[in-house]
This record gives sequence, C-alpha cells and structure tokens, in this order.
Amino acid sequence: MIVVMKPNATETEIQNVIRKAESLGARTHPIYGQHRTVVALVGDLTRISRETFNAMDGVKETVRIQEPYKLTSRSTRPDDTIIELPGSDVRIGGNEVIVMAGPCSVESREQILETAHAVKEAGAKVLRGGAFKPRTSPYSFQGLGLKGLEYLAEAREQTGLPIITEVMTVEAVPMVAEYADILQIGARNMQNYGLLQAVGKVKRPVMLKRGISGTIEELLMCAEYIVSSGNNNVLLCERGIRTYETATRNTFDLNAVPVLKQATHLPVVADPSHGTGYRELVPAMARAAVAAGADALIIEVHPDPDNAMSDGRQSLDLNEFARLMDQLRRVAVAIDRTLG
Amino acid sequence: MIVVMKPNATETEIQNVIRKAESLGARTHPIYGQHRTVVALVGDLTRISRETFNAMDGVKETVRIQEPYKLTSRSTRPDDTIIELPGSDVRIGGNEVIVMAGPCSVESREQILETAHAVKEAGAKVLRGGAFKPRTSPYSFQGLGLKGLEYLAEAREQTGLPIITEVMTVEAVPMVAEYADILQIGARNMQNYGLLQAVGKVKRPVMLKRGISGTIEELLMCAEYIVSSGNNNVLLCERGIRTYETATRNTFDLNAVPVLKQATHLPVVADPSHGTGYRELVPAMARAAVAAGADALIIEVHPDPDNAMSDGRQSLDLNEFARLMDQLRRVAVAIDRTLG
Amino acid sequence: MIVVMKPNATETEIQNVIRKAESLGARTHPIYGQHRTVVALVGDLTRISRETFNAMDGVKETVRIQEPYKLTSRSTRPDDTIIELPGSDVRIGGNEVIVMAGPCSVESREQILETAHAVKEAGAKVLRGGAFKPRTSPYSFQGLGLKGLEYLAEAREQTGLPIITEVMTVEAVPMVAEYADILQIGARNMQNYGLLQAVGKVKRPVMLKRGISGTIEELLMCAEYIVSSGNNNVLLCERGIRTYETATRNTFDLNAVPVLKQATHLPVVADPSHGTGYRELVPAMARAAVAAGADALIIEVHPDPDNAMSDGRQSLDLNEFARLMDQLRRVAVAIDRTLG
Amino acid sequence: MIVVMKPNATETEIQNVIRKAESLGARTHPIYGQHRTVVALVGDLTRISRETFNAMDGVKETVRIQEPYKLTSRSTRPDDTIIELPGSDVRIGGNEVIVMAGPCSVESREQILETAHAVKEAGAKVLRGGAFKPRTSPYSFQGLGLKGLEYLAEAREQTGLPIITEVMTVEAVPMVAEYADILQIGARNMQNYGLLQAVGKVKRPVMLKRGISGTIEELLMCAEYIVSSGNNNVLLCERGIRTYETATRNTFDLNAVPVLKQATHLPVVADPSHGTGYRELVPAMARAAVAAGADALIIEVHPDPDNAMSDGRQSLDLNEFARLMDQLRRVAVAIDRTLG
Repeated sequence: MIVVMKPNATETEIQNVIRKAESLGARTHPIYGQHRTVVALVGDLTRISRETFNAMDGVKETVRIQEPYKLTSRSTRPDDTIIELPGSDVRIGGNEVIVMAGPCSVESREQILETAHAVKEAGAKVLRGGAFKPRTSPYSFQGLGLKGLEYLAEAREQTGLPIITEVMTVEAVPMVAEYADILQIGARNMQNYGLLQAVGKVKRPVMLKRGISGTIEELLMCAEYIVSSGNNNVLLCERGIRTYETATRNTFDLNAVPVLKQATHLPVVADPSHGTGYRELVPAMARAAVAAGADALIIEVHPDPDNAMSDGRQSLDLNEFARLMDQLRRVAVAIDRTLG
Repeated sequence: MIVVMKPNATETEIQNVIRKAESLGARTHPIYGQHRTVVALVGDLTRISRETFNAMDGVKETVRIQEPYKLTSRSTRPDDTIIELPGSDVRIGGNEVIVMAGPCSVESREQILETAHAVKEAGAKVLRGGAFKPRTSPYSFQGLGLKGLEYLAEAREQTGLPIITEVMTVEAVPMVAEYADILQIGARNMQNYGLLQAVGKVKRPVMLKRGISGTIEELLMCAEYIVSSGNNNVLLCERGIRTYETATRNTFDLNAVPVLKQATHLPVVADPSHGTGYRELVPAMARAAVAAGADALIIEVHPDPDNAMSDGRQSLDLNEFARLMDQLRRVAVAIDRTLG
Repeated sequence: MIVVMKPNATETEIQNVIRKAESLGARTHPIYGQHRTVVALVGDLTRISRETFNAMDGVKETVRIQEPYKLTSRSTRPDDTIIELPGSDVRIGGNEVIVMAGPCSVESREQILETAHAVKEAGAKVLRGGAFKPRTSPYSFQGLGLKGLEYLAEAREQTGLPIITEVMTVEAVPMVAEYADILQIGARNMQNYGLLQAVGKVKRPVMLKRGISGTIEELLMCAEYIVSSGNNNVLLCERGIRTYETATRNTFDLNAVPVLKQATHLPVVADPSHGTGYRELVPAMARAAVAAGADALIIEVHPDPDNAMSDGRQSLDLNEFARLMDQLRRVAVAIDRTLG
Repeated sequence: MIVVMKPNATETEIQNVIRKAESLGARTHPIYGQHRTVVALVGDLTRISRETFNAMDGVKETVRIQEPYKLTSRSTRPDDTIIELPGSDVRIGGNEVIVMAGPCSVESREQILETAHAVKEAGAKVLRGGAFKPRTSPYSFQGLGLKGLEYLAEAREQTGLPIITEVMTVEAVPMVAEYADILQIGARNMQNYGLLQAVGKVKRPVMLKRGISGTIEELLMCAEYIVSSGNNNVLLCERGIRTYETATRNTFDLNAVPVLKQATHLPVVADPSHGTGYRELVPAMARAAVAAGADALIIEVHPDPDNAMSDGRQSLDLNEFARLMDQLRRVAVAIDRTLG
C-alpha cells in the first residue's frame, strides 16, 4: 500500500502515518519527492484497511498495490477450479463449455418439462428456472415458490439434467439447497453479505451474478465472502452492467470473461440473455462469449416466449435454441474446446 | 401504454396485440402511420405489464406513459407526507429542515455518547450510528451488533435525540425496530424486496437509501414495496450514485432532490457524506442540499475522524459540524425554512 | 411521435398541441386515457423536432417512435453497403472479415515499414498508423504529421496495403485525403460536426469511431452527417465506452456489433485494442468480435511495444499478432466467413 | 510515479524499469514487498509518461501520485484567478457571484434585444446567446451565424452587457473573437485540441464546458491546453454528465464545484439549464450552485420558451428568471457573497 501525503503535509503528519503503520505490523519506506512525500507499506497488510490512513491529517489518498481478495485470486491458486455436479458427469471449468438453459420463471409443470426435454435434446447440460423471482414492481408475478422447485426436481428426474435456481433470502437457503444442484445468487443480491455467508455454509455450488453496478473487483470480493465461509465451489456470472447506453437492456460486459480468467481460478459463466435483454442479440453474443473463453453459458429458453410470464423479450424459443447450439459447438471447436 | 410495432409487422400481428390488450381489460386505439403502426392502450392498466407485449411477434417496443408507482406518487396524494417521531417533537417533511448526525459506526459507549451530546448541542435533531455494517471485505470490522444498539439507546436517553440505524436482514428487523426510531435500509439493500416487505410491516418510519446504481424511478418502486406492505412513513435518501467520475467517491446526485419533490409526497433526505466521500466536500454540498430543497440531511460526525473504524475520510469532527450547522441555518432562512 | 400531456393539462393546452402539430403538416390522433391524454402524430415528421412540443405548456414529454436517422438506416436500404478500396481487392462489408493492423503512431520510417510487411504476411489487408495524434496532455508526443503520412504512403507502395489514418481538423482533410485510403474520425471528434461535413465531401471512405460516451443512436446520427453531405462510404467502429468499470481502460461494448448490424446497412468495425486497453485481453475480445459478426477488426501492432511512443500497453508484437490471426481465421470459418 | 511490477516479475525486468526511469532523469526507489515489487520514481517527472512503463515486460500498472496538470493547478498558483471583462465592471472569480443569462440560440433581433433588457433588469451581468449551434441532427436549425453575432453586439450596445457565445471551429475563432467578450467552448469540443490551442492564442477569456463524459481531471487537462497556449483567462463550466439516470437530461454534477475550487485557481461556472434539462428543476439547482460556491451561473432564458427554436424545455421565461434572481441573491448573502 502507498500512502500519498498532501503537498503541504508536515513532518509530524508524515511521522504519524509511519507510527500508525508500524503499530499495525507493517514496515514503512517513506520517499521524499520533489513536491510530495509518499509512504510505502510492506509486509503482511491483510488486516490493514486503506481507511485507516485515508482519514489521517495530511494524507491525500492511499493506493492499493495488491488486490484485496485472496482465496479467489489466481495468484493464491494458479490451477483452474473445476466444479463437479454430483449425480451427473457435468464438470464446469474444464475443457468442455457447459450450456445451462431454461425459462426465466417456472410457470407450470408442463412448461418446465417440455423445456427440459428440448434443451437436453439440443445439448444443454444444466436446466435453469426461477421459482422465486425478484421483481421491480410489487404488483408483478413473483414466482411459484416451493411448487416451482418441485417441478424442477421432476424435470431433473425425467431428463437427468442438474438444476440451477435462485435463492433470495437467508431463510430460504435450506429449502432451495434441498432441491437445487447449483444455487444462484442474483445480481440484486451480489452484496447481500448475510446471504453470501449463508450459501457459503451449504454443500452446493453457488453461481454468483455480478450486480448491475458491481465492479469486477467487487464481484471477486463477494465471492471471497462465500469462499471464506467454507464453500469453494463458486461460479462467477457476467450478466450485463448499467451504463448510459439504452439500445441494450444492460451493457453485457463480455470483457469480464478474459479479465476474470486472469484474476481468478473460479469458472466464469456468461449470460447473454440478461446481458443484452433482446432475443435477437442473444445468438451473436452467445457465440462471442464462447470465443472469449467463457466456461459456461446460461441462456433463457421458453416454449412460447410471446406468452412468457417474465423476460419473454430475451428468451429464445426451442427451435432458435437448437440452432444456436449448433453454432456454439462450431465456435467451441474453433478454439479447441468442446460443447454440448 | 403505447405498443410500437415493427415497420414490417403484419396485420395479423397487430390484431394479436389488440386482442391480447382487450383480453386484459384495456381499450385500444391503433394508429396507422406512414412507416409504422402503434397501438395505444387506455383504461386501468395497473395489472398489465409491458413485458406482455414486448415479447410478442411484430412488436418493436412498448412505451409507458404513466409512472409505474402509485401509492408513493404525488399525483395520488398531492400533500406532503410529514413524519413525526413519537416521544419527540421532530417532524420530517415540514418547514423545518432536520439534520441527523453521528458516526458511521457505533464504536464504543464513550464515542457515541460524546458525539450525541455534541451534535445535539450544535442543533442536530436525530442521532445516527451503525450497529450492523455491510462491508465490502469479509475481513473488515462488521459493527458492534446488539451492543451498538444498546449504546444508541443510552445516548437517546441522555440527550432525547431519536435514533436512526441500519437493519440489514429480515431476521434482525424485530430487534432493530425495538431500539431504533427510524429504520435505515442501506443502498446495497434498496432492491432486497424481502427486507422491504419486512420493514413495511413494522410501526417505525423507514429511511430508504438509493442504491448506487438505482434510478429515481426504481427508488420509488422500492418505496412502493414498503408502502404497499402497510407502512406509509418512508423517507427517501439520495446518497450518491456510481458514474465514471472518480474525483468523488460517488457522484452525489443532488438533482434527485427536486425531481423527487415533484414526483412524490414523501420527504427527501440528502446524505452529502456518502454522496461525496470526502470530508472537505461535505460543507459545500450540505449547503447546496438545503438550498435545493431537501427536507433533511444526514451527516457523518465523529469525535476523532482520523481514528474512526469506518468512513473517517468522510466524517466531520465535532467542531467542523458545529460550524457547518451555522452555515446551514443561514441558507435555510434564505429559502424561508428553519433549521436546527 | 407521441406527445404525452401532463395529468392536469387543460383542454386548451391539448388543443394548442394539436394546432401546432397540424400547422407543421402532421395528422393528429388525441387519445384520452384514464389519467392522461396523449396526442399521436403521424405523417411525414422529418422536419418536426421533439423540442417543439417539449417546451409547450401542459406537455410532460414526447416519445419518438421512429429512429431519427434515415440515410444510414437499414429500413431505408436493406442491403449491406460494401466498401471497396480502389487500387486493391479489399472489400469491407462482404463475407470476408477484414483485419486492419499497425501501430498507434507512425514513429519512424523503419518502424512502419517493418510493421507493414509483418502484418501483411500475417494476413492483414489494411495498414493503420497515426500521423496526427490527439493527446490528453499538451506535453505528450503529438505525431509526426506530414512526415508520417509520407512514410505510410511508402509502406503502401512496398506492400500494396491500403492505409487508414486519422484526420483531426477540417483544414487537414485535403492533405490527409491525398494520402489515406480510409479517413479515420477519432472518438473525441465523433460529434465534431464541421469535420463530419468536411469528410462527407471527399471521395474517400470514412471510418467513424464511436465516442466514449456516444450512444449507438448518436453514432448513427453522426454517420448521417457524413452521408447527407454526399459520402456513402462510412464504416462504423466500436472502440469502447466509458463506464464505472476500471478493470479495463474502456468498456468494449461488443453488443454494438449485432445492434448496428440490425439498425444499419453500413459495415461495422471492432477495435479490441482501444476497447480493452490491455494487450493480454485483445486476443479473447478479437475472437469474440469475429464471432459476434464484425465485418472488420482494427488492431494495434508494434514491433517493440515496450518502447512504443503511445499505446504500447494495448499493442501486440508481431509474433502475437501472427498467432492471433490464426485463431481469428478459425473462428471466422466456424461462422461461415473467411478472414485473412 | 509508482511502477507496480507483476508478482512474478524477474529481477531483470525490475532492473529494466529502473534503467529506463533513470535514463529519463528520474531517481528510483525500488521497494521489495512480500508479494510484489514496486519502483517509486521521484524528481522532475514532467516529461515522463506512464505509458512508457505500462508497456514494459513485468509491469502490472503505474500509479500517478502528482496531478498531470500544472499551470491550472492551485498548488502552482494558490490565489484565485479573477477575470475582468474590459469595457465593463464585471469581475468573475471574486466575491460577487455573476449570473450570465440569455437564450440558447439567437433567433431574431427582437428576441435577443428583449431578452437582454429583461435579464439586465433582473440583475444578470453577462448576456449569453448562440449564433453557431452544434446539433445532434443534420436536419435541425444550426443557428443564425454572423447575423446572430451582429444582433448580440447590438444588444451589448443597448444594455452594456458583455456577451458570451460559442465558437465551434478553428476557422471561426477570429470572427467570433471580434464580437464576443467571452468565447465559449462547448461540451462536445472539450477535447478538440486544435480549437483549444486556437482560443489559447486570442486575447479573450474562454469558458470551457466539461464534456458529457469528461472527468474533472480531463477538464483541467483541456484547460491546460488553453493556458499553455498563452491565455490565462479560462473559466471552467460544469454542465451535466452522462450517467445511467434518465430522470434528468444529464446528471448535473454539482460536486464538481467544490472539487474544482480546491484543485484549481480558475473561476468555476455552473450551468443548471443544460445540467438538468428541465425548466422546473433549474431554480432549485441554481440555488444549490450558489450555495455550493460557484463563482458564476449561466442560465437559459427566453421570452417565449414554448416557441424557442432550441432548448425551450430547459429555458426560463423572463418572469421566472426575475423571481429566481431574487432567490439567488438571498442565498448568496447567506454565504457572505453578493449577487446581481
């Protein structure tokens, strides 16, 4: 860490910073420049926060040199984490690109069963479907709840596809964990730290979605909450961020894929459906996500998007999905991976 | 609502939209333009979602004409909501501008008592202090918890100042509601709908902070969750949004104050401490917030900001706060309000 | 266009809007809803601006139904524009994906000649290089100017590669047009309307880069300036936008590629070098750009990036570029296109 | 400057950085930490660019410690710059808050004369009006040009008010400088470096508007272009930035006022009209701008906003402006300044 002093900082203020840093166990290197002094801190800084110095008299700012996450960092663990889903042969983070597909919401037993069979046929390896839905308006459809989980379980039984579904509250974690093969933490809950710690204590892989205004570093800090609570099986999902551009529903930040692959050993998932918000943009950005190196994709598919209860605008129908899978397979092969 | 058809939409597709809209109880007015057709929907559209039409074949987009919030809208209730804090004479939303002040975190009994007496002396009417802290890093100080609530209660007893403190989880709502006069929902939880519904069921005013990427409309929709759960006493707080600018910690969006005063009858609070993130910017932006029409301000004050356990960089010390109060009083008078 | 009246608009205000619209040649359809009235305008609205109505008493807002660009719109011209570069067999916008490559700045005769031969060998079809450089600091290297153009011309002579280079001022247009095969308008000048009109009058294709805060619609409006001045040969280039994320230098908005391919008939270029700002992210995002459907890529290549006078951080060296071209070729084939 | 090496940087790479830095005249302090090495550079770094190091092998990033602007920095010149307008007693940057007012565009002789007399009567000290208008659409009204300048000059003659008007191209600088008392550089041209250098060479004060995606630091770097070209009389104007929020046309970033007052000695102007985009928000934000410490305000006023040819939505009429001036006067007095 570098503590940058103000141009007019007094020698006493500089000494105060040095004393404070050393009292916290750091070694210090003050460097007197032409206009400014900086104090470099070295040693084990794990428990030293930048705020400690930011607030001191004479300090202009602090600059962090090391990344603030540890367990999720690739420098801590160079080898890729591979997540296996028990009861299936699905492995996420290896050479095979995994496609997870299904509707935004589980709407009925028929809907989820029909979708499950179709996406499996097309090559998907995991079934997605929401039973609890976070909705912007209190007046919108909020999901089938437990009934939805039961339908998902039946779909798994019929198809063999593991299921991924969202959990929104600490209280619901045990129930959802009983049904789901992967627990999803939605974008709105990326920084719901209580929830992160709760899913950190269960024996299920967790897919953590990036918040719409979350930085990549914050996403990794949130993953750190889960891993430091005891659960190493975390998938990170890029699903679009909020920018000034309105041509897309969100700005799908595909750059996050190669950035994350360098920063962390955890598998990276891309969600072009939420990322773009428009069905007609999904195929191009799904192909791009494979080409950029995503380990998995999660794609919204609905047997009748026109009548979907949520997110129909961004859902592919069953035929569109099957055609897309053929394209994705070819792109995967072009970068020496497999898919579907 | 206006449903905009694609340029090449077929007559069948247009008729499907009309049929669907009428089946949902709307009256329809198709308008055939030179290049495009639009279908205007009128009537009670409360239960009709834009998604219903967005996903249909031949539809380009839908345009909402009416705002999606109701109970919080000034068109529903033209008169200002005034929130009274029982056991005190504090009224928020009236002519007097209320200042809430105190430390980011309750750190010790001495710290909160010293601060409480000093901010009361300077004219603050409510004491703030965090007992449960949401922190970006799992390795940072997370607050004193219940002990912090007890210290706050003691400070209230000694000074008569009502207290505002954050509640982060559904489970903690009963406990925090027992101690706090106003429950604060933090920015990271703006869209934690379960939590919003929980605080909607208690008999305490709630201050809802805008998320760092929340739009003003979303803030109102979240307030709608609370009000529609039964709690009319909601304060809305602007505390800075995330933009590309890094000279300030957040971009304090003061424009939200006049926008909200027009859109809603609920009182509006400004938080220049989190809004800017730097102690030296707080006085200018606090004065500006009063001039812009905020009903209340919430300001971080600490007896020793250099050694604060959190947010010291943005905290005023006790003398700086007293001086600021003098300035704010004069600005309030200049716009025919009172303060402190 | 839809003119949305305020909830309390008077009948006189509504009639004023209708009268004004009809005086401008539009037909009007007032629709009286439960809470609000809207007035739909149809007919030829080309010369009617939304501002005309936005400012009128009783008007809440106007909503545009049709896109504001015409000549660049795919609905005006459904077939792809293909841009041919005279004196070469390069065609941009067809089935072959064209790669343009070269250094950020022309630094010396040796540097540009060495690069030109190497990128040609690797399969690039156009040589890039800046002779005039817009620099954030007045104290930075500003390019070789005319000398740089002469070196580029010599490189073209030796290799047969057409050249693309930036023009920054109206006065420089004739000189740059004499040397360049494609004129580049940089991101900072996207809305420099005088410059757009000037390049609209020369007989050279123009590559228009999206500004770092330009919307896709604004990019098309700026292209409209060029095309309406008489130059149909415009390429649109995505090169990263400014968002809150700092892990990448800009947020390369690859979504713009499929959005633009739908909205316009003009060819679309992707610039992963400026888009990401980091050399190690360029290969992944270049592959993704091909997979997403870009018609061309523009990539920074330098024989010695460590000693580049500008943008070395985002430049590939000659070997890295050659390896990347092999990867891009395979991805292009996977989507039934050719490359290099 | 701090050069941060990658965790796995070799000793040779570290030595290369040191050698390079010393060859450029810097002294170096390598600091070997637990996981990483950093090299601190001190001495006169004016001519050393971060790019030089960013591109080198083994370097992760560089961190700038000193601000990159010099002549505009308050550390270079602690005292406020006060700009006097010859032929008047107007001084900008002193204790009096100056209000500049007038229409977006000069539309006719009558319009500008009527406005000039009215705003003078209300207390404005400078008349604004655009003769050359940058417009998003090539099909919109582009200003009266020279005729507009002549009308402005006549208004000055009648009222004694100095005038401020925009110059958009290098070629137009001499003509506009002949008429205007202050040259305005618009937001779209903030980084038009050729234009900045051109107005840097004339003997007229220049008001530089912040680009809609310009950082405060970039604004100061652009002012540096003007000052380093020989013109010290630069005013900096905050006029709203582009964010995700759409309730306002732009996000008026009032925080820029106190940030700039600390960073630079140049006077700071606030433009609440463009900043917010809505007439009904202008009074609140104009009051806030005075309270935040702006040295001047620029406000759009039109005798008949409903029929303005541009920006009527954000223009006050003559009575609204007079009422606002009364409010602003009171707020100025409350912070010990004068106005109007």
